[in-house]
Amino acid sequence: MGILYGIGVGVGDPELITVKGLRLLQQAPVVAFPAGVGGKPGMAEQIVVSWLQPQQTRLSLAFPYVQDEAELLQAWQAAAAQVWQSLQQGDVAFACEGDISFYSTFTYLAQTLQAAHPDVMIQTVPGICSPMAAASVLGIPLTVRTQRLMVLPALYRVSDLEAALQQADVLVLMKVSSVYEKVWSVLKQHQLLQQSHVVVRATLPDQKVYSDLRDRPSLDLPYFSILVVQVR
Amino acid sequence: MGILYGIGVGVGDPELITVKGLRLLQQAPVVAFPAGVGGKPGMAEQIVVSWLQPQQTRLSLAFPYVQDEAELLQAWQAAAAQVWQSLQQGDVAFACEGDISFYSTFTYLAQTLQAAHPDVMIQTVPGICSPMAAASVLGIPLTVRTQRLMVLPALYRVSDLEAALQQADVLVLMKVSSVYEKVWSVLKQHQLLQQSHVVVRATLPDQKVYSDLRDRPSLDLPYFSILVVQVR
Repeated sequence: MGILYGIGVGVGDPELITVKGLRLLQQAPVVAFPAGVGGKPGMAEQIVVSWLQPQQTRLSLAFPYVQDEAELLQAWQAAAAQVWQSLQQGDVAFACEGDISFYSTFTYLAQTLQAAHPDVMIQTVPGICSPMAAASVLGIPLTVRTQRLMVLPALYRVSDLEAALQQADVLVLMKVSSVYEKVWSVLKQHQLLQQSHVVVRATLPDQKVYSDLRDRPSLDLPYFSILVVQVR
Repeated sequence: MGILYGIGVGVGDPELITVKGLRLLQQAPVVAFPAGVGGKPGMAEQIVVSWLQPQQTRLSLAFPYVQDEAELLQAWQAAAAQVWQSLQQGDVAFACEGDISFYSTFTYLAQTLQAAHPDVMIQTVPGICSPMAAASVLGIPLTVRTQRLMVLPALYRVSDLEAALQQADVLVLMKVSSVYEKVWSVLKQHQLLQQSHVVVRATLPDQKVYSDLRDRPSLDLPYFSILVVQVR
């Protein structure tokens, strides 16, 4: 019976995997990752593909981008069943974009698997998460001294954003693309556009950085775009 | 003229450095790190020592643990001068515990150096930060779905803590040792002790984990202890 390793593989640059993550990734007979959209390889697969050996089996798991609970549960159960089957033969390394504990698909897979098979062995390896990668790309400290950091994921409301601006010294908005214009208006009201930055595809060759958003009321952004506000 | 690389080397386990960080660390003729306390090697030095080559020069830089601005400024200027001198001969890799942008000593060094020598070349490599490492060690997701994360550094006030508990779904308190008893009382009032965890020396052989703090009104903790509250 194998061990399931959940490995955070970082945000884009394949060299931002940890030495430990790479070792466990290359030792596993089976390497799993979330399937991409429209038949394209997903981000985690793109990150690890250059590290994989020809004899390693690749297991692409479907996690649909939907809100419907029943559909999600069904997808997690199907993925868990596939992983469970592979674990009968040996270890499985699940490669996950960013960090393994931070808004990660791996959480649902691990919880579903544990519910069905309580004695399954799972170990996680942390990875570089997007707020840290974005700060590095921007060449700014994310936080210093006594600064309070707040991270809001997608789907936040304007009231959440207003409240966060009251309390946080540094604010990170994940997956900002779908709400960018709304966020821009709030930042404008608070005169924070000059201290705001958007990072797209951090650490990849085609990364984009927008610093000072005063002239950018709208931006055509991909899903995994991140916004950093240096509030005070 | 060399480049100054700021490298986040993770929280303790030497294998949690990134592949990129390790490559740049081993290529630099000079490796710098914050000096430890009382003549002992500091954490960053302990993490990288097994990766260093005999021909690499080690540069231990003093960053005193004080609040006095003048004393701090003097220390940063002295450290920046030492690094500047080494950069005349070639690259310098500064190894920094955790992530390079997240409450990092490197920020002050880089800012002081840039103020004195505006054309100095600086690049940073992100690292595993303590909240992610703590979640991995605890075997819990740090954040899922729409959860809002808040991180409070040391020196926070009870009012900050109360406000954070109102707004955050997951709360991380860094360097909790000096305020632990006060924090414990607030968590008790909010009936959150059962969902609270302390992690000490995460990923090191002697790591300690305290989950469910109901029976632990006081704990003798080292400086770099972290507390994670799963608020809701």
